[in-house]
Amino acid sequence: MNQLQAYIKNENTAALFENTSIGIEKEGHRVTPEGHIAQTPHPQRVDGSSENQYIQRDFAESQTELVSPPVIGREEGVLEWMHAIYDVTLRHLDNEEAIWPYSMPPQLPSDDQIKVAQLDDPAAVDYREYLVGAYGKKLQMISGLHYNFGLDPDFIKGFYQAGYSDYENLFDTQNALYLKLARNFLRYQWVIVYFLGASPYAHDSFFEPGVEPVDHPVRSLRNSEHGYINHEDVHVSYHDLETYITTLENNVKTGHLYAEKEFYSNVRLRGGAKVRDLLHTGIKYLEVRNTDIQGDAPYGIQLKELVFIKYFLLYLLWIDEMADDPEIELGVKIKTQVANEDPFSRTAYYEEGKRIVEGMRQMLADLGISQEKLALIEEILHRLEAPEETPAAQIVKAYPTVEDWLAAGLAIAEKNRKQALKAPYQLGGFTDMELSTQIFIADAIRSGIQVEILDRSDNLLRLSLGDHIEYVKNGNITSKDSYISHYLLANKEVTKQIIQEAGFQVPKSRTYHSLSEIEAAAGLYLDRPLVVKPKSTNMGIGISIFKQGPSREELLEACRIAFEADDSVLLEDYVSGVEYRFFVLDGKTIAVLLRVPANVVGDGKATIAQLVAEKNKDPKRGLDHRTPLEKIQLGDIEALNLKQQGLTFDSVLEEGQKAYLRENSNISTGGDSIDVTDQVHPSYLELASQMAQALGVNITGIDLMIQDIKKPAQVSETGANYGFIEANFNPMMMMHVYPAQGQGVRVTEALLHYLFPEKGFLK
Amino acid sequence: MNQLQAYIKNENTAALFENTSIGIEKEGHRVTPEGHIAQTPHPQRVDGSSENQYIQRDFAESQTELVSPPVIGREEGVLEWMHAIYDVTLRHLDNEEAIWPYSMPPQLPSDDQIKVAQLDDPAAVDYREYLVGAYGKKLQMISGLHYNFGLDPDFIKGFYQAGYSDYENLFDTQNALYLKLARNFLRYQWVIVYFLGASPYAHDSFFEPGVEPVDHPVRSLRNSEHGYINHEDVHVSYHDLETYITTLENNVKTGHLYAEKEFYSNVRLRGGAKVRDLLHTGIKYLEVRNTDIQGDAPYGIQLKELVFIKYFLLYLLWIDEMADDPEIELGVKIKTQVANEDPFSRTAYYEEGKRIVEGMRQMLADLGISQEKLALIEEILHRLEAPEETPAAQIVKAYPTVEDWLAAGLAIAEKNRKQALKAPYQLGGFTDMELSTQIFIADAIRSGIQVEILDRSDNLLRLSLGDHIEYVKNGNITSKDSYISHYLLANKEVTKQIIQEAGFQVPKSRTYHSLSEIEAAAGLYLDRPLVVKPKSTNMGIGISIFKQGPSREELLEACRIAFEADDSVLLEDYVSGVEYRFFVLDGKTIAVLLRVPANVVGDGKATIAQLVAEKNKDPKRGLDHRTPLEKIQLGDIEALNLKQQGLTFDSVLEEGQKAYLRENSNISTGGDSIDVTDQVHPSYLELASQMAQALGVNITGIDLMIQDIKKPAQVSETGANYGFIEANFNPMMMMHVYPAQGQGVRVTEALLHYLFPEKGFLK
Repeated sequence: MNQLQAYIKNENTAALFENTSIGIEKEGHRVTPEGHIAQTPHPQRVDGSSENQYIQRDFAESQTELVSPPVIGREEGVLEWMHAIYDVTLRHLDNEEAIWPYSMPPQLPSDDQIKVAQLDDPAAVDYREYLVGAYGKKLQMISGLHYNFGLDPDFIKGFYQAGYSDYENLFDTQNALYLKLARNFLRYQWVIVYFLGASPYAHDSFFEPGVEPVDHPVRSLRNSEHGYINHEDVHVSYHDLETYITTLENNVKTGHLYAEKEFYSNVRLRGGAKVRDLLHTGIKYLEVRNTDIQGDAPYGIQLKELVFIKYFLLYLLWIDEMADDPEIELGVKIKTQVANEDPFSRTAYYEEGKRIVEGMRQMLADLGISQEKLALIEEILHRLEAPEETPAAQIVKAYPTVEDWLAAGLAIAEKNRKQALKAPYQLGGFTDMELSTQIFIADAIRSGIQVEILDRSDNLLRLSLGDHIEYVKNGNITSKDSYISHYLLANKEVTKQIIQEAGFQVPKSRTYHSLSEIEAAAGLYLDRPLVVKPKSTNMGIGISIFKQGPSREELLEACRIAFEADDSVLLEDYVSGVEYRFFVLDGKTIAVLLRVPANVVGDGKATIAQLVAEKNKDPKRGLDHRTPLEKIQLGDIEALNLKQQGLTFDSVLEEGQKAYLRENSNISTGGDSIDVTDQVHPSYLELASQMAQALGVNITGIDLMIQDIKKPAQVSETGANYGFIEANFNPMMMMHVYPAQGQGVRVTEALLHYLFPEKGFLK
Repeated sequence: MNQLQAYIKNENTAALFENTSIGIEKEGHRVTPEGHIAQTPHPQRVDGSSENQYIQRDFAESQTELVSPPVIGREEGVLEWMHAIYDVTLRHLDNEEAIWPYSMPPQLPSDDQIKVAQLDDPAAVDYREYLVGAYGKKLQMISGLHYNFGLDPDFIKGFYQAGYSDYENLFDTQNALYLKLARNFLRYQWVIVYFLGASPYAHDSFFEPGVEPVDHPVRSLRNSEHGYINHEDVHVSYHDLETYITTLENNVKTGHLYAEKEFYSNVRLRGGAKVRDLLHTGIKYLEVRNTDIQGDAPYGIQLKELVFIKYFLLYLLWIDEMADDPEIELGVKIKTQVANEDPFSRTAYYEEGKRIVEGMRQMLADLGISQEKLALIEEILHRLEAPEETPAAQIVKAYPTVEDWLAAGLAIAEKNRKQALKAPYQLGGFTDMELSTQIFIADAIRSGIQVEILDRSDNLLRLSLGDHIEYVKNGNITSKDSYISHYLLANKEVTKQIIQEAGFQVPKSRTYHSLSEIEAAAGLYLDRPLVVKPKSTNMGIGISIFKQGPSREELLEACRIAFEADDSVLLEDYVSGVEYRFFVLDGKTIAVLLRVPANVVGDGKATIAQLVAEKNKDPKRGLDHRTPLEKIQLGDIEALNLKQQGLTFDSVLEEGQKAYLRENSNISTGGDSIDVTDQVHPSYLELASQMAQALGVNITGIDLMIQDIKKPAQVSETGANYGFIEANFNPMMMMHVYPAQGQGVRVTEALLHYLFPEKGFLK
């Protein structure tokens, strides 16, 4: 038992050992619906690499590089991020462009139609032009998947502090562990190529003139001599950190490499901007670079491969072996040899493979890994005995010719694109979160603002741009509003008092604390248009509206319902007109919505209950704000409303007859949303903005009752043509972004740019 | 039926008619425990009149003038404010000074010991010196009670709009109503003197040399020729507004008056700073000035008198009569005559009184006034037939000589003072509100910052100083913290993540979502010091602490209790040491508290349950934060804690034996509070401040576990001598202001001055 194994066993630190950090970078070309490399520029709105850490460009202008943040401990989390970043990227591609799903490119155009990435930084463009000269354009069109792998710092610290390290300090201990891992990886990198190699073919157009195209399938063209490899005279030692740095720097100094980043090793030591920085930062993680993109995985890799690579890397740390430069040289050769093997053949390194597989199984048993994870890993280990199940073999079996494979790649790309567009109001990977938070994350990804999920079930995010940090909950609770504003707006009477004192029109209302109080005063309300509502609900729950004035029985029933939601109930003058929601941000009204109460339209046959069931089948309608619209309910309030119209749930409506199941128009109670931002007379936009200012609140939804939105707001001796209804804190955003009718306003993006004005609005 | 009566009857507007605005101003001398006029300056901390609208000075430096804000509709509200302002004033008087409870002053010193109020404004001091010359110092030592009375603007507006007014516009209508009321009042002002006259005596020292002291009791010396009256050659007409202004201004121009405010009419027309302003502001309310202070009422007036005056004033508007200048002149004479009557005699104006009493009764019936109010008014109307029940007669009966009366005045003053000091952690008038809100209102009153109660049950206040408005809820929810901060701090894991990332020491913790998850992991926790707590409670509810590590059964029981409070439960490393609460405001730690868990100390006889019952009798212990300390409960958690010590509620503790009923030390679960602000090593003050800054929160209570507060905070390789426990949003303030031990820190006042830095800190 070596020191590391002893530490894990004696100190019971398997959980820390497995608590690794994983992130991936996945390249892929934008292609047209016809399967050609896209000639369009990288989408402006998902801007250049210097400005967006999630959506970058690699060598070519057409070559997206999608980068997940590092995820600690939970491999599924990496896929969630890739799903989200994919969704955002695909939704903002124009001309129905999709992303090519394989490492080897589709049919390539002539070199003059391959553009290097037009990055803002001239040096970055120069570097790419140098690569064209040194390697040719076609080689650079290969796409890869890079796997960033870090150990838990507490694991390393514990290993050192508990006395298991051979080194005198934590810094050297950490570097030694990563160097051992890197060297062993380079020795055994063929394992990745054998088990995950997925580039058996390339179209003839990939091969430079004068190069004989490979005419038979292999395991991994990308890992063969046709892939990214440095010239033979580039030699870098992994013996120790200082030597690694010096030899790599020497290659640059002597002109064998243009820059450090041209060193195409399949493992890079990461930690600082330049390799020499590693001397003070230490090695923080490794970048493993030889995994082929898995075409059958929607985001280039699946959970089983993520898990397999992780435990393969942990195994390389676990074993006693300490490869050095000679073994590394051997490892590179084996890797190339395995890459060139017939995908259906047993590998020449079968015996070595068997030893590794058995060793990994033993380690997994020692670590006490879960059955679920073990099953995932076994799916891959099994391939040693069954070469026909390797990805390369599977591709060849399914698509026997290069043409078949090209057609399949295009079909997969198109399928992935359609999947991303299917429910644009959700963000893949995070669909368990509250809807506006999903879209807010999407907008952050698109804007290149770093977003961390601090608490998933709490919908609590941390956004950062340089040193500027903002926390956001539920997509719209931010640092921009004070806590007291929440309470002011939750108190409808106080809100109205403030709005009235500021000189705006507010319907009068009175508060009651018990049903018996209301019974005594009922006479006052029977003959007047009236709204009954709980004092502090903002979701439409418990609200009843009587446009003609209620009967005594109706009034008391409505109050009974309202008292279920709050101890205090408001009886409020009903203001004639239609209610609109004004979304105010930073003193400006940016979106206006008409909300139509939950309703159904008859067909002469179906009952209201049946019509509701039918309408609720719309995928935009869901529950708990997971969709832009909510399902219509069949509850007490709906029954009461129908009763006012002489209807029940079992009534059959005539063709074209409309029945409202609610008087209140909240989306949350099944209403329809209609974007009218461009139709409202500007005087109301100004009114709503001023009201928000009077309340001292920066993000709010102001509800106004308006007689005619085309005519300017007016106040005369006999009254006004509008009335303030209420101000909502943390107003719903999705109904503005994805209305039932109208274009919609991306208020989430506006909010993001309100939080980060320095970012500038990317239109 | 006149127009006003018709409007009230036809339009059913009695409620609007009665919805008047009432405020009072009540003067009173500070007196020493010996009953002498205080020679000390007006307390600096309740600063001069220009800076405090609630607590002012009148003529003399010793003469407080306490001013309630106007209260609409609810007469009880006026008393609540006076109670509060009294409490604040009396609590900040030094040398056991009290406030003299009568209109006529106590025994007066020689004139050179009577100081005019030393106000900041030199003109205000000059005016008082002029008064000394014109009237003598002694006269000015009389104290009065002024009753500010306004009609509901909606009542006047409706009267005009419904066509009942004889005037062409609303402005003239309003002025005419107030002028009618003022004139009728001046005609019948004797009614106030008869029914409420309460100054039968004065000590001989009150009379200027050469003036014959009155040697027999009268109804109201203050309303007689010995009281505040202008020289005979001052004539002001109330015929119409223009004439009123012109005649008053002429008196000033011709030198008959020093200033408009020297016009000692018993009713003043209010609305602008100068009388001429009334021409554009209109008359907004009347100031009625001839009520004597009611010595038996703690704040100079009781509900029945407030209600009586209100309906008497409404009656003067209700009747057909329209007194004019000749009747006013008559009214002044009658008033003086009635003031001089023997208190026990039937008044010479009995017949007129009878007509008024009957008229009032008829009006009250027509208005449909409540039985409760009617009973209050009848208590006073009854005095017409029973002169011996008038206040003046009651005083003479109870205190037959001037000396008796002086002694009684002093006893009342002392009783009122003691009452105000009895529960200094409450604010009279507002004891139904949350405790820190009460103290916050008290501090606002003391600082002269205007405070309005927007929603009483919501503990929602509006504070203003000039144009600067702040809203405050629960005494510490303000504009100074963002809404997102609330959610950050409510999420204990995220809070700890942020604190840890900022480089501070944080004990590790893990979250569980079900009891079965914990059952599976229980083995990890059995042998380590542990805290079990619900993820998002901040009141100590559901928290259990195991200093030695729990047994399996104890762990699961504690988790079961914690899951009752939240869906997620934290199992957290227990940090050794003692937990302290650091109150941080605006980046500075201003108070530190040690909280000792709920405990009892045995006497060898009583059971724990009996000891708890005894300890809970302490008046500082209450429920629902109405007192600085909370009662100790006998619940599941207490039983579990005792069980850990081998005890039950029925165990009898030995003498001096201490038993803790809680492990957590929250005051809200019965803990004791000990102020240690001055004992803590400054390094911890700095730590707490920095933590608050890392969280971006301006008002917070940081809980730190500290091994030894005398030794500086230290972090070494083997650990730290402190640990962050949690940050509390809206931290309790009362436990700092009124700790169980130690001096306490008035954090409410510090917060007030944080909100209004322009006010300056009044130390």
